[in-house]
Amino acid sequence: MTIYNQTVQLQGSARTDIHDLTPALAQAVAQSGVQAGSVLVFTPGSTAAVTTIEYESGVLKDLERLLERLAPARGDYEHNARWGDGNGYSHLRAALLGPSLTVPVAQGRPLLGAWQQVVVLDFDNRARGRQVHIQVQGE
Amino acid sequence: MTIYNQTVQLQGSARTDIHDLTPALAQAVAQSGVQAGSVLVFTPGSTAAVTTIEYESGVLKDLERLLERLAPARGDYEHNARWGDGNGYSHLRAALLGPSLTVPVAQGRPLLGAWQQVVVLDFDNRARGRQVHIQVQGE
Amino acid sequence: MTIYNQTVQLQGSARTDIHDLTPALAQAVAQSGVQAGSVLVFTPGSTAAVTTIEYESGVLKDLERLLERLAPARGDYEHNARWGDGNGYSHLRAALLGPSLTVPVAQGRPLLGAWQQVVVLDFDNRARGRQVHIQVQGE
Repeated sequence: MTIYNQTVQLQGSARTDIHDLTPALAQAVAQSGVQAGSVLVFTPGSTAAVTTIEYESGVLKDLERLLERLAPARGDYEHNARWGDGNGYSHLRAALLGPSLTVPVAQGRPLLGAWQQVVVLDFDNRARGRQVHIQVQGE
Repeated sequence: MTIYNQTVQLQGSARTDIHDLTPALAQAVAQSGVQAGSVLVFTPGSTAAVTTIEYESGVLKDLERLLERLAPARGDYEHNARWGDGNGYSHLRAALLGPSLTVPVAQGRPLLGAWQQVVVLDFDNRARGRQVHIQVQGE
Repeated sequence: MTIYNQTVQLQGSARTDIHDLTPALAQAVAQSGVQAGSVLVFTPGSTAAVTTIEYESGVLKDLERLLERLAPARGDYEHNARWGDGNGYSHLRAALLGPSLTVPVAQGRPLLGAWQQVVVLDFDNRARGRQVHIQVQGE
């Protein structure tokens, strides 16, 4: 069995960034040589998350609006009162969406839908580097 | 190690459909011969999702109402303005719940709770066929 | 390949309990002897969920408030009307956050961020014992 780890570096802009990780995922699977198995995407850190969506600017804007309704950037948070870093909303959005996603792999390719992209959402309010782990398991 | 792939075909009704995938999951695990490992459920496509819930009509109705509050079917979406297919809400609900779920397997059975079912939620507004991937890994 | 299963016992208080599972996770990985692979956390049962967050009392309170807005404990639920157990909100919160999470393992450690903890959220309205499954896979 092969276990292949790769870490991708992303750059945040201090606003909500939605990065398309699909090309990196396909590349990691190809480089691993795995034909059958799965690929895990994981965001270390508590202000980012991973999910899938059609990477189309209209629906990405709609997702940002939904998250702004659920956990407004300028909301009133205990986290901010205690730590003063103003990113309480980032933590909540990240916890709601979750940090991990697993996609099955067959015939050397992730079994994503045609209009389905894997996205990393960076909610932090600081412009910072961000790591994402990709792990391919299989044979 | 065994890697066993199965694809289940579901039929959507154009309204939110919540399919109980638990029997298919148990069957895939049995057919794989895996005694210890895990089973991954993945919905390809950006208008469906997977989670667990008690498959009881009352709570399923409650979940639909919650999702309707979060992302109303007749809401105002950029995605709809650009593409005219009216399924912006479907994309948002799918991204929020996520497309993947992994259940541990021991003694040849998924370790689900007694009242916990694996469900696929098809949010699309078209009556269409829908694939779901089940992958069992283990020994 | 190693597949190492462990079940952790938690005790609920009948209110929303957020348990830090990070030490148990690190311990399970160490005991498994796995250097490279992944660790799966799964909550059997339909009134608990798993995610990651900074285990800091301010943001935990913020998360509880967000979930109370989304699915109020004293809301009006079909589930409650039919079953009378009053935990409709517990089911909805659990379905929204989801029961499974996978963290990559490298050099014998889960690749979590420095301020990122794995938490189990027990939403049930009864003080009850709660199992959580931890499964380490790898080499």
